[in-house]
Amino acid sequence: MRDAYHEELDSIGDGLVDMARLVGSAMGRATTAMLDSDLNLAESVIAADEKVDDLQRDLESRAIQLLARQQPVATDLRIVVTSLRMSADLERAGDLAEHVAKVTRLRFPESPVPVDLQATLLEMGQLAQRLMAKAAEVIVTKDIDQALQLEQDDDAMDLLHRTLFQHLMDDRWKHGIETAVDVTLLGRYYERFADHAVSVARRVVYLVTGEHADELDAAGAHGDGTAPVEGA
Amino acid sequence: MRDAYHEELDSIGDGLVDMARLVGSAMGRATTAMLDSDLNLAESVIAADEKVDDLQRDLESRAIQLLARQQPVATDLRIVVTSLRMSADLERAGDLAEHVAKVTRLRFPESPVPVDLQATLLEMGQLAQRLMAKAAEVIVTKDIDQALQLEQDDDAMDLLHRTLFQHLMDDRWKHGIETAVDVTLLGRYYERFADHAVSVARRVVYLVTGEHADELDAAGAHGDGTAPVEGA
Repeated sequence: MRDAYHEELDSIGDGLVDMARLVGSAMGRATTAMLDSDLNLAESVIAADEKVDDLQRDLESRAIQLLARQQPVATDLRIVVTSLRMSADLERAGDLAEHVAKVTRLRFPESPVPVDLQATLLEMGQLAQRLMAKAAEVIVTKDIDQALQLEQDDDAMDLLHRTLFQHLMDDRWKHGIETAVDVTLLGRYYERFADHAVSVARRVVYLVTGEHADELDAAGAHGDGTAPVEGA
Repeated sequence: MRDAYHEELDSIGDGLVDMARLVGSAMGRATTAMLDSDLNLAESVIAADEKVDDLQRDLESRAIQLLARQQPVATDLRIVVTSLRMSADLERAGDLAEHVAKVTRLRFPESPVPVDLQATLLEMGQLAQRLMAKAAEVIVTKDIDQALQLEQDDDAMDLLHRTLFQHLMDDRWKHGIETAVDVTLLGRYYERFADHAVSVARRVVYLVTGEHADELDAAGAHGDGTAPVEGA
């Protein structure tokens, strides 16, 4: 049987998984709302972000209480501090899903996305959701290989983002400036959402190994020691 | 005379001020490089971001060591945890200055900003730098009124951002899609940079009062209890 202290530590981990599931689902629903011009669904995504914010505040205050009462050291301390950082990533990812829903609301009853870009943005939305689902899994399994895998998966997001920009820059672009602005911002929201999922996974790597993910990369397959996460 | 423990706590505060000064200066130089199409200056901003990242890592590890060795409670604990959050804000703000410099590098020898938008973007750059300078000051003074003032200052940034969008959406826009995309992203970088400065100030409010800035707002002048920081 685990003591109350470790139960509290576990429950902070559970809270992070709940947050990751909520924001992953929010991005999935925001993408559907965007592609279907579904105002009700967009509104529900916007409203639901409050729950993510509440969860973050709750996690934050519980982590601080744990620090004050139990004064953890070594690994346990690292878990609590890293949890604070992860909850900030997840809260921000939730905001980005909300932003996608807000663009949809702004353009309703039109869709912010022209038909010839819907497939690319659907892919970005699905990939964003998958990355967050994997991040949630990594929080549970603490599997380093799986965590480092997310950075490779994120390369696919960068590729989709580049495809989107190629469409925008194409001389045959015929959707006007407003749509170009919307698509530019939407593309950035998906890319940043994916960055936060990768960041959560990188923090799990730090949690388990005590080393930052790019230090492991430098010693391993990536070789060049540069951070693969580019928030450009 | 202060003991070694409180000296270390102070020096973490000094480190945050150093970070805020560095990223404020980086955004100022990135803006100059953007408006003058100065590739060397842009490159130096990009290179200098590494120093901000190093400072953050250093602060983070010192904060964690302090938690482990000294096991602070109450106010001191709140200072350490809040410092971790502030350093994350500042590191991210540094990335955004770097992003501005990268857009400049990408478009060199052209300027990414058409002449009729240079005044607006200059104002955004200057305001961003001022907000960060005030945030640095608030870290030192811990003056709540000054901290809450930053949110009002940030309204001016939102206004500038809206002006930028009005230009973009104007039927007379004649600079093409590529420039529209660049200006959309640049506008977002400045707005997010300002958000991080405001966030640092809000964390100082939390540090001093134990209450989140929007709770104070709800009880005070703002009245409606909604968070004034919109990361849209």
